[in-house]
Amino acid sequence: MSSPFLHGHFLLETDTARRLYHDCAAPLPIVDFHSHISARDLAQDRTFGDLVELWITPDQYKHRALRALGVAERFITGDAPAAEKFAHWAAAVPHTLGNPLFHWTALELKNYFGITTALTPAAADAIWREANAALRQPTHSARALLTRANVALVCTSDRLLDDLSDHAALARSDFSSRVIPSLRADDALAVEAVEFPAWTQQLGRACNTDTLSLDGLLHALEARLDAFAALGCTISDHGIDVLDYVSTTQAEAAPLYARRIGGEGRGHNGGGNDSSLNRDEAARLRSFLLGFLARSYARRGWIMQLHLGAQRHTSSRLRRIAGPAGGYATIGRPTDIDRLCRLLDDLETAAALPRTILYPLNPVDYAAFATLTGSFTREGVTGLVQFGPAWWFNDHELGIRTQLETLAQHGLLWSFIGMTTDSRSLLSMSRHEYFRRLLCNFIGAQVARGAFPRDDALLTEYVRRICHENARVALALPAPSPSS
Amino acid sequence: MSSPFLHGHFLLETDTARRLYHDCAAPLPIVDFHSHISARDLAQDRTFGDLVELWITPDQYKHRALRALGVAERFITGDAPAAEKFAHWAAAVPHTLGNPLFHWTALELKNYFGITTALTPAAADAIWREANAALRQPTHSARALLTRANVALVCTSDRLLDDLSDHAALARSDFSSRVIPSLRADDALAVEAVEFPAWTQQLGRACNTDTLSLDGLLHALEARLDAFAALGCTISDHGIDVLDYVSTTQAEAAPLYARRIGGEGRGHNGGGNDSSLNRDEAARLRSFLLGFLARSYARRGWIMQLHLGAQRHTSSRLRRIAGPAGGYATIGRPTDIDRLCRLLDDLETAAALPRTILYPLNPVDYAAFATLTGSFTREGVTGLVQFGPAWWFNDHELGIRTQLETLAQHGLLWSFIGMTTDSRSLLSMSRHEYFRRLLCNFIGAQVARGAFPRDDALLTEYVRRICHENARVALALPAPSPSS
Amino acid sequence: MSSPFLHGHFLLETDTARRLYHDCAAPLPIVDFHSHISARDLAQDRTFGDLVELWITPDQYKHRALRALGVAERFITGDAPAAEKFAHWAAAVPHTLGNPLFHWTALELKNYFGITTALTPAAADAIWREANAALRQPTHSARALLTRANVALVCTSDRLLDDLSDHAALARSDFSSRVIPSLRADDALAVEAVEFPAWTQQLGRACNTDTLSLDGLLHALEARLDAFAALGCTISDHGIDVLDYVSTTQAEAAPLYARRIGGEGRGHNGGGNDSSLNRDEAARLRSFLLGFLARSYARRGWIMQLHLGAQRHTSSRLRRIAGPAGGYATIGRPTDIDRLCRLLDDLETAAALPRTILYPLNPVDYAAFATLTGSFTREGVTGLVQFGPAWWFNDHELGIRTQLETLAQHGLLWSFIGMTTDSRSLLSMSRHEYFRRLLCNFIGAQVARGAFPRDDALLTEYVRRICHENARVALALPAPSPSS
Repeated sequence: MSSPFLHGHFLLETDTARRLYHDCAAPLPIVDFHSHISARDLAQDRTFGDLVELWITPDQYKHRALRALGVAERFITGDAPAAEKFAHWAAAVPHTLGNPLFHWTALELKNYFGITTALTPAAADAIWREANAALRQPTHSARALLTRANVALVCTSDRLLDDLSDHAALARSDFSSRVIPSLRADDALAVEAVEFPAWTQQLGRACNTDTLSLDGLLHALEARLDAFAALGCTISDHGIDVLDYVSTTQAEAAPLYARRIGGEGRGHNGGGNDSSLNRDEAARLRSFLLGFLARSYARRGWIMQLHLGAQRHTSSRLRRIAGPAGGYATIGRPTDIDRLCRLLDDLETAAALPRTILYPLNPVDYAAFATLTGSFTREGVTGLVQFGPAWWFNDHELGIRTQLETLAQHGLLWSFIGMTTDSRSLLSMSRHEYFRRLLCNFIGAQVARGAFPRDDALLTEYVRRICHENARVALALPAPSPSS
Repeated sequence: MSSPFLHGHFLLETDTARRLYHDCAAPLPIVDFHSHISARDLAQDRTFGDLVELWITPDQYKHRALRALGVAERFITGDAPAAEKFAHWAAAVPHTLGNPLFHWTALELKNYFGITTALTPAAADAIWREANAALRQPTHSARALLTRANVALVCTSDRLLDDLSDHAALARSDFSSRVIPSLRADDALAVEAVEFPAWTQQLGRACNTDTLSLDGLLHALEARLDAFAALGCTISDHGIDVLDYVSTTQAEAAPLYARRIGGEGRGHNGGGNDSSLNRDEAARLRSFLLGFLARSYARRGWIMQLHLGAQRHTSSRLRRIAGPAGGYATIGRPTDIDRLCRLLDDLETAAALPRTILYPLNPVDYAAFATLTGSFTREGVTGLVQFGPAWWFNDHELGIRTQLETLAQHGLLWSFIGMTTDSRSLLSMSRHEYFRRLLCNFIGAQVARGAFPRDDALLTEYVRRICHENARVALALPAPSPSS
Repeated sequence: MSSPFLHGHFLLETDTARRLYHDCAAPLPIVDFHSHISARDLAQDRTFGDLVELWITPDQYKHRALRALGVAERFITGDAPAAEKFAHWAAAVPHTLGNPLFHWTALELKNYFGITTALTPAAADAIWREANAALRQPTHSARALLTRANVALVCTSDRLLDDLSDHAALARSDFSSRVIPSLRADDALAVEAVEFPAWTQQLGRACNTDTLSLDGLLHALEARLDAFAALGCTISDHGIDVLDYVSTTQAEAAPLYARRIGGEGRGHNGGGNDSSLNRDEAARLRSFLLGFLARSYARRGWIMQLHLGAQRHTSSRLRRIAGPAGGYATIGRPTDIDRLCRLLDDLETAAALPRTILYPLNPVDYAAFATLTGSFTREGVTGLVQFGPAWWFNDHELGIRTQLETLAQHGLLWSFIGMTTDSRSLLSMSRHEYFRRLLCNFIGAQVARGAFPRDDALLTEYVRRICHENARVALALPAPSPSS
């Protein structure tokens, strides 16, 4: 089987699409403003022993497909030899037609290893040897892989208590891609988690602050945000499976917090297994904390990202096998648009609405979210509230095309902040190529139908903004120097 | 930049589409059965000082786009000179590619001013002068604009307490387009509004009826419906953001009404700020009133329109700036299909289900609403319950195409009542051209794929019915005379 | 009007699609694993007096369309002469363009009668005579119609108390198509139905078991499942309009059951009209019973089908006229994905998750259901949890295309179990042709765009698996012999 993806016009069906992609989109440096790439791998400039270590072990998308095909766990995350794991993946690839894994696989082999043979059982051995040989070269260290992909910036995803020492090292290094932390602040909102009270203590120790009171917690949170800011962070993120926001004042939240962490008569260590808050109380405490953080983001000029609507509680069996983020999640309930409006309105009323990127996981939310981008605005800011790129289970042709078309018709394509990978894999930067091809193809198709004007300068400006410029401006990054 | 919309085949991709559009659809008179055009402007045959007064000031779609692009409010609804407002809009137009505003702008300049240059900053001055010169001519008065668009009928949207004197004047005038009121009865269902008790008093005074009791209110409502009917009204409308219908008898509703307007121990003026009904009680009173009005519509042979699922409470800041309908709303929650079935079933059981047009704002409701058109039927009536044309935030290529395809596959395209503008702008009649082109293109594409037969007479009949005849029949209008 | 469907390339827009359809898909025997065909008609090899008896009387899709067009009930299900009923249907057909009825009508006339003239009022008489003449031949008995359609297997839908004697007769017959019962177990979950207590008594008598206790009921259910299994049943089905699953143990369910059937102090016959359980209690009892049955299916190696999200309570008028399944239902609320996960997780945790096919009626559930297929998996099983083919109101071009695209992108097309008719009509086997053409066209379009590789062997294997093999394996049927 020869790969259909080798030619330069992959997914580019019109002359306009081809011109826009090759002349404008392809050469633009990547701004990957939300990823799960390991800062440690970059700080240490990790090298990889073989293709499984680099490509399969960290990739839950592949694990998921292999399991759905009935492959034994031993060959996925288990103790089978790497070569056998690779053979199972090679056998699976032809059975992923239609799923983005099929295209990603071909693009990643081509872009990082120059391999243009399709991965099949017949070709598996040769590809295994060729790729592993390349991995032994300095051309394929973690940093080199990003450099090869022309990455200008990558924002990793870091928790409040992460020590950020890898980021400090990277800031001092001569690595040509800029790497900055982005704050994944979920720990602060997990008020019902068993670990929450202990976490507040750890946070207090990390900041030399007493977190027995809500006021103390807020001081500690600010201290951590300062630490993130010191390393260049300008973007945050919350994974909110069910948005249960309700306007809540600090005065209302303080006693709930005190009760939750056991400060009320039970001693600081009295946490226990249940949250001691009922569902409504937990929602109120969480809502206040989200509002507090959002106001801090706004004051600092950060972007707030909200990843909404995942269903992470599916198979308890796979959770035991694969851990809390093991690739078995699914698309959850739609988001309550009224609660989302209340959150944004409360922030705007307090003059503290940060730039916000909304990522709905359930595509039934697309039209409502795309339209919402026109409901909260600010003078002097283009695209204050963003309908983010197709996320996770929607990061494929259908999802990207639907997101683009929905945003364009219900909102303004011009202001779109564009693609980010949200990936753990260093090779996923190829998804920017995938997105850019689909974007250029979308625009080219509109021109071909007579719906967009044949105005090369204008269309090029759309592509440039969506693939690079809008994200750069939103992240408050310096413009590239003329020579770059 | 030259406009791509100048040629006659705009959006018509097949020979069939072109023939159907030019030979059948284009010449058909417009029946705009739901609009927000000002009856006063037509009664007075208003003229317009400049293009901003006609085209930008009344158009919240443009305001919304300008705000999303970060333009200062001063240049949108503020006190900036008209020429500067126009310049900002001209600068914005090239940044609306993909949004219907881009196509509407080009069509409106072409259809009403013969301007085929694309509106850009470079072309802005010339267009501003040319259009303003035209507006000084009698060819561009309010009435002349409708005549130019070949409007046979326009239904304005009028509130229960509107005095309808403009409609009376229009009925006596020689204006060639027929203008009739349509009843927007939301005031009667706003039982939780602060203004509700006072409104019932006003209604009582207007009808010389005591509205202290529910029975009195119902008499007054009937009196107002008589007044609307006397001026030719055959169509009503309700904007229902969240349908919370529950079967409620008059006996159940009467004490709720009495309590609400303060007739119970607090005196008629004691209304106060809160509604004195809990949420469930308010839903019951509202449900009874909706049922009462619907039964009256059915008895009168009127159409009932339900506009469902808007989220109007978004930005409090913009509400203060732009008023209650200022262009900052968004798409709200899906509609509860079970409650909708209960409403329709209660009415049918009472032999009082009027012709009904359902407009869901959230496109996730499309399949369910399209299918529902087959669940309530009546002998001798084609299309008793209609899935209305793509509404408001869906009134664009994607929305229109999705509505057509969903209705055709889940219901019957043949019975579709077709397009209406729901617009405040006199120039929006161009949206009928837009819809008709998309309809003909949809049919032409089916023929090209071999899915529809190459039967010109049959396809022409579909177009004629959807663009004109089905609405005419539903509105109980006389057939056009042979010469028209 | 000539029919556009006569040529062999109907809906096949690319060379790849044509080759895949004609060389691979078309000759494959049909496995119709969920239908409502009458086992009695097949056992008795029924013949049909005319086309109305065969084609219109049992087809609620046609009834629905006729009603929506305003046709009087007398010509649909009433006492009008057959020829008049046929004339009304002939008049309606040209008004169904875009609805699947238009294509189905043409395919069924072609495939079963060799009639390639489009059904219109002008052609009605000739078609009526020609088809009725054919129906008098042994070539058009119930069995002959299935044989003509190359049906290898059909699973009828049978209730727990059905005596299955027709299936026993069919098992002894020489009919070349295999006919097996599939269990429609809704009666066991209808715990709130007025008939439920009496039904449990009937079940007890049928199984010589005391069903006064939950334990007794479970024994009786197992006995009936044994009876189904003895006749080859390997597949079950539940129609669940609103999934209100909540984990419930037998100890929790037993007293609810006892209360429901009146065993608690009121005597076995004291049932009464209301269910004596509140909504939450009924949900718990129902949830336990569903879990019990599912565990039994898993132990037996059966497939569990869940048909989710119908809204059957619409027009009370039509229910009176047309009975409980009279074609007036509609698409109901989306399914709560969290509850569905809890059901599957509880079963998997008990090592008792059967192969499961999920059929969401509301297409807003498609993305979530397609994704869910990757969340519950089993070593050695390909496609343990299936997103079933486009069902009922979605069984048309748009629905099938959307289901295929959504499944391919969010899950794995490779494992898809493929088409089933869910139809009462013997002629509906033509819907397999319709599905197969659309599947091949979908694949061909991907190849033409360069998204799928030009690998004939691989693409053929996809088609073979989806059109036949995956269903055969899931149903645990023997492989066809080489000569078949």
